[in-house]
This record gives sequence, C-alpha cells and structure tokens, in this order.
Amino acid sequence: MNEAIDLISEKKKVFAILPAAGTGERTGLKTPKQFCEIAGYPLILHSLWNFQRPWIAETVVAVSEDWLPYLQDLIKLYRIQNVHLVVGGQTRHQSIKICVQYVRERVQNARCNASDVIVIVHDAVRPFVAEETLQRIAEAAHKQGAAGVVCPLVSTTLATQEDGILDYSLVRSKHCNSHTPQAFSYQTIVTAYDKISKHDLDHGTEVLHLALEYAGVRAKLLETKDEVWKVTYRRDICAAEQFARERLARLAILSDQTGNDVIGVLEEQVKKKRLTLLSKCSSLTTLPSGVNAVIVIADAPTTDQCLLDVATVLERLKQQLHPLKGSLTLLVTVPTEEKMVRDDLMTRFRELRLDQRCRDICVYCVILETKSSPVEKERMERACELTANLVVRQDELMSGQTFIV
Amino acid sequence: MNEAIDLISEKKKVFAILPAAGTGERTGLKTPKQFCEIAGYPLILHSLWNFQRPWIAETVVAVSEDWLPYLQDLIKLYRIQNVHLVVGGQTRHQSIKICVQYVRERVQNARCNASDVIVIVHDAVRPFVAEETLQRIAEAAHKQGAAGVVCPLVSTTLATQEDGILDYSLVRSKHCNSHTPQAFSYQTIVTAYDKISKHDLDHGTEVLHLALEYAGVRAKLLETKDEVWKVTYRRDICAAEQFARERLARLAILSDQTGNDVIGVLEEQVKKKRLTLLSKCSSLTTLPSGVNAVIVIADAPTTDQCLLDVATVLERLKQQLHPLKGSLTLLVTVPTEEKMVRDDLMTRFRELRLDQRCRDICVYCVILETKSSPVEKERMERACELTANLVVRQDELMSGQTFIV
Repeated sequence: MNEAIDLISEKKKVFAILPAAGTGERTGLKTPKQFCEIAGYPLILHSLWNFQRPWIAETVVAVSEDWLPYLQDLIKLYRIQNVHLVVGGQTRHQSIKICVQYVRERVQNARCNASDVIVIVHDAVRPFVAEETLQRIAEAAHKQGAAGVVCPLVSTTLATQEDGILDYSLVRSKHCNSHTPQAFSYQTIVTAYDKISKHDLDHGTEVLHLALEYAGVRAKLLETKDEVWKVTYRRDICAAEQFARERLARLAILSDQTGNDVIGVLEEQVKKKRLTLLSKCSSLTTLPSGVNAVIVIADAPTTDQCLLDVATVLERLKQQLHPLKGSLTLLVTVPTEEKMVRDDLMTRFRELRLDQRCRDICVYCVILETKSSPVEKERMERACELTANLVVRQDELMSGQTFIV
Repeated sequence: MNEAIDLISEKKKVFAILPAAGTGERTGLKTPKQFCEIAGYPLILHSLWNFQRPWIAETVVAVSEDWLPYLQDLIKLYRIQNVHLVVGGQTRHQSIKICVQYVRERVQNARCNASDVIVIVHDAVRPFVAEETLQRIAEAAHKQGAAGVVCPLVSTTLATQEDGILDYSLVRSKHCNSHTPQAFSYQTIVTAYDKISKHDLDHGTEVLHLALEYAGVRAKLLETKDEVWKVTYRRDICAAEQFARERLARLAILSDQTGNDVIGVLEEQVKKKRLTLLSKCSSLTTLPSGVNAVIVIADAPTTDQCLLDVATVLERLKQQLHPLKGSLTLLVTVPTEEKMVRDDLMTRFRELRLDQRCRDICVYCVILETKSSPVEKERMERACELTANLVVRQDELMSGQTFIV
C-alpha cells in the first residue's frame, strides 16, 4: 500500500476525465443517459461523487453545450468540489481530447513535474466504481504508462462478414471486455491525442488503442469484480436503481431501549438488504453526521414521546441533508387494544408527509402490534424486513403511510 | 409471414434444446442461477414458458443429476407440456450433445423428414426471449443451415497477451456479441456434434463455431433488440426481477361504475408501469381466464358490498391460478368522516392475508379519502400510481396492508 499512500500524499497529481457530452441520440431517449434520474439523483452525480477524493486533484467533465448550464447548476447545488467543465465534441475521442488539452494547460501552469501526473479516464455512465479500483488503475498506469480494467467475456465475440454472415468466432479465453476506469501517464495520453488520426478521432472509442497506436504503450489490463458496468439499456437502469439505493443509504438506528429484541432482528434485516449501518445510538445527541436514513425504535403506549422524537430527528435530518434526500421510519410497538395510539400515528404521519418543511424526507410508520408479550418472532421479523425494505426503496409514494404488522 | 405460418402448420418440426446442467460453481452460488427465484418462480420456469408454443414440438432440457428430481417436480406442478429431461454433461457442449442425440432418436423413430427439422438452442438463463425472435431464428436456420441472434458490442473486445498486457483491440463495427437463441438445420447440428473434437467438447461454448468448423455452415447473424441478455451477475438478477414482474402481470380492472374518473387515471398508470391490461369488466361473470391480478374499484360508504366483491374475486383467482401466484387490490373511495369503514377495511384485509385459503395471493387495500367531491386530480393520481406499483411488485411483505391516500 506504499503506492496508495504515495498517491494520497500528492507526490503524484491525479486528474480524472469524464466524457459526458453524448446527446442520447443513439438510445433515442429525450434525456441523455448520464442525466437520467437514478435513485433520486441524475446518474452523472453518482459518478461525480466517486471522484470526490482527496487524492484526485481535479475532475474534468466534457458536456454538450445544451447541458452545460444544467450541469453547472447541479455541481453548485450539490457542492461538488474540484470539478471543471468543458464543452465536449461530437465524439468520445473529440471530447476527451478537449479535456486532455485542459489538463495540459493546468500541468504547464502549475509547473508540476509531468512525470508525476496520472490521468484517469472514466465514463459518466459507470456510476459504481470503487475508490480501490481507481487507485489500482492509477498505480498501474504509473508503472506501465497505460492501464484499463477488464472483465471476462460473458458471451462470445463474433467477427462478421459484411452481409451479416459469421466470419469466425473468437476464442473466449484469449479475449476480454474493456471497461473503464482507464489511466494513463501524462506523456502517454498527451502523445496519443496529439497524434490521433482524423479517422480514429471521429470513429474510435478505445483510448487503450490510441495509447498503443500513437504512443507505443501496451496497457496493463486489470481484471476486476468491481461494478464497473455501463448503464446502456433499460435493464441497466433497473439494476442501477437498486444498486444506487443500497449504496446511498447511510443508516442510523435510534433507540433508548437497551436489550430490545427488535434491534437485533432489525440489524439482521439491514445487513441482508446490504444497507450501511453507520450507527446505533440511544440519544439524538450522538446521531452522527452523514446519516440520511434514521429508524427510530420506540415502545409507546402513548404517542407523545415518539412523535417528539420523530419531530426532532426530522428537524436534524432536514438541516443536515439539504439538498440530499433521506428517510425516517418509526418502528413502534403498540398493544393491540390501543386503537387511539394507532389512529394518532396514522394521522400524524400523513400530516408529516404533507408538511412542506419535510419535503425530500420520506416518512414511514411501522406498527408492530403486541397481543401478547413477547411478540412472536415471525411477526417481529416481518416488521423488521418491511422496515428495511422501506429504507432501501425510499419510495416517495409510500411516504406518510402507516403499516401494521 | 408465409414462413411463420409454415412453422405453425408443422410442416417443419421444431425442437428446442435448453442446456441447464450447470452447477453454479463458477458463480459461487449455492443454488445454480437457473433455479434461483425470480419474481416468485425459479428462473428456468420463465424460460420454459417461452417455449410453450404450438409450433415447438418438444423442449429438451439437460439438467444435472442432482437437480433432476427438482425439475421433474417443477414441470409436473406447473404443467409444462412437451418437455423431455436428460441428464447433462460436465460442459455446455457435452450437455447439448446429449440433447442432440435424443432429438436424433426422436426424428428417426418418428420417421419424419430430417430436412424439415429445425433445432433451436437457447440458454435457460435468458428468460425473456420473445416468440417472434424464436420464429425469426428458426426461419433463418431453415434457409441458411445455422443462425444466431447478435447484439452490438457495448464495450470493446480486447485481445490479451498472456501476462495481462494488451495485445490489440478489436474494431467494434466488425464484431458483435453472440447470444441465444440460435437455430440449426437437423443436418448441421447432428454433423457438428458427431465430429466435435475432444478439446471443443470440453472447453468450447459456441455452437455457431461448431457449425462452421465441423459442418462447414456459416451462420446467419440476426441483430435483435429483444431482451435476450443472459442472467449472469447480481445486477442481471435485479433487472430480471423487474422485467419478470412486468411481464407476468395479466391484469383485469373490475368496476361497476361507468364513467368513473378513477378508471381513466388508473389505466394511464397501468400503461406507464408496462402492465398488460387484459380486461376491464363491470361484472365478475365477464372476468376472463388467465388473469392473475385484479384491481377492484369501488365507491363504498359501507364495506359490505366491496368486501363481498373482494371475497368472490379471491375465490375465483384462487381456483384459476393454483399453483401460480397473483394479487388482488381494492381501490376504494371513502369519505373522510367514515372512520368505521376505514377501520373495517384495515381489519378485514389483515385477516385476508392470514387466511390460509388465500396463500399465494397478495391482497392490498388502497383507500382514496374524499374530503370534497370531486377528488383532487393529484391525489387520485397518487392513489392510482400506488395501486399500479403494488400490482407490479406483488410484494408479499406489503400484503394485508391498507394504504390511505
């Protein structure tokens, strides 16, 4: 890990390039893919978040002229740091070339040692790249001059004749799929785009090819199991929605009851749903920052105390989160005979949703009715699974609802 | 479409081969992918349903010895027709070879004209192939001797040197991804598997390659936009879940109120969610068979009539569906002051879920509260969207719940 420390200490200067100037013509969508909403945020925002790392000096995004103002607003609203926008070209390589030109100016102006500069190229529509993958690829580029992540072929690649007839099929074990991130030494990428032919500039897409063809550098290919897939088809959007919701949730469980059975069962469900449990706390004062989903566990013969808790948590979430979205779920044990409590909660949660101050925070109430004590395990599990599902989905349509288990 | 009619009139005899003998070793899952549950049913069942066509004479499935009894039970339970199971081999080609041998015996015993026989090969883990695609590929195989569906490359294919270094990158426009279904004339596939080398049998996967190498037949490659992707990674399972739920739902809306505003709004939402609306009917007697999701629209100052409707529909669904799953959603307009009606419905729906006779049918109640008449458009839309979502998701955890909008 010496190399990783090296990066972070900024002996090496790392730039990231995100081409995002596509207009969605190919997919026929009105909104280009990179601006489609995934789990409540434009896709490109998920990608940009991945590059908000102290060891990445600057992220250069190529965007079409039409979408430039929109992206500027987005970056301001979500306070994305160290990002520079350029107007891209008609093709992927044209856009990257413009970004490379910007990096060159920055490097020259900063008078930093060009041999310490690494340039990462990534697609805006691959929103789940892990920091570790970015680091590995930057390290490899430093050693090799160029590097890219690859995955095994899922289906055979065929070479075609012009009339749609099979020419030959490729041996799967000798080939792989090229993904991004890719990374390049400054010298490699600058040379590649200086020398690129008109044909490659207009028709090519693969930067590793340019590195080989124009800079004579054979890239190191790193196999990865990281989720670097490209959001291309509707099926990818479905999957991205699920992945993004799991990844975004940063959960805290708030409960003042030590040894409450419910907490243990809830934790299991939270784990099953792949949610990040940031904190279990017994008091609001210890609620950590960065939380965007809170589950309040309460045991209430009257509604007053838990509604007070809910109101306070909402206030905190609202202040911390804006402009991000979040959720608050009350998981409350209520004796069956306490119909008034149930009705109070139902009414109050419907009002909470309509409260303009709580916009962007989904509120749910899950009532675990107790006929007998202790509550049967199966019903407790059901309530906890339902609660965890609500947190993952963060479905605005369900906001304000009370669920009785 | 003459050719399609030709197929259906059974001048040509079409067999389908589904290799499904993989043990999931590669993915590390306990349950092989083809038996994982997607939208309530094992993945392979979705695939088998696609081959239940009058023009497909028989579907031959290769399965591992361990999973043979399970698959036998599944086929019996879900009454899958014209299917024959064989114990597969260690590799894809070994399994297909065993299936081809079975087809050969069938053709010889039936003394049918071998030149009229077409064999489709498909993967059990590509559950969304459309009938039209199967027909197109069978037609093409009849003309060309071999045919396969292909998609454009989403990412560049790279040729690698042995040390994980880039050898060269392939030109995207001259290559494509091979998917299934593929289809072959009887002569082509029999020859290919008769002559297959030990190395190909043990290490290869591409049947189009065998057709070319051993039968000298160059396949026709058909580009498709059909959803023929392979369920390989977790992201594919997420997407398959969504696609399967949309495709399975065969919806009827039951309402005795002509000109009810709600119906129009609901229909829009149903369309948005890509649900198949099989029927709108005003009486239970006209409820068509094949329906697995019913939305009952009611306008009830008392609960008696709508609960009667719900009970009758449930009874019908239960009889028609078994062993399939389904859902029933009551979308009911209730004046705000009628608290008793609301409470009645809540209690009754929770009981319905617990009623053992209603297992496998999810029940939901959506109450659209009317403070004023007419109901505000926005709230009506919200109730209808929520209802449509419930039908798509068919989430057992939400069964028995009452939602108030």
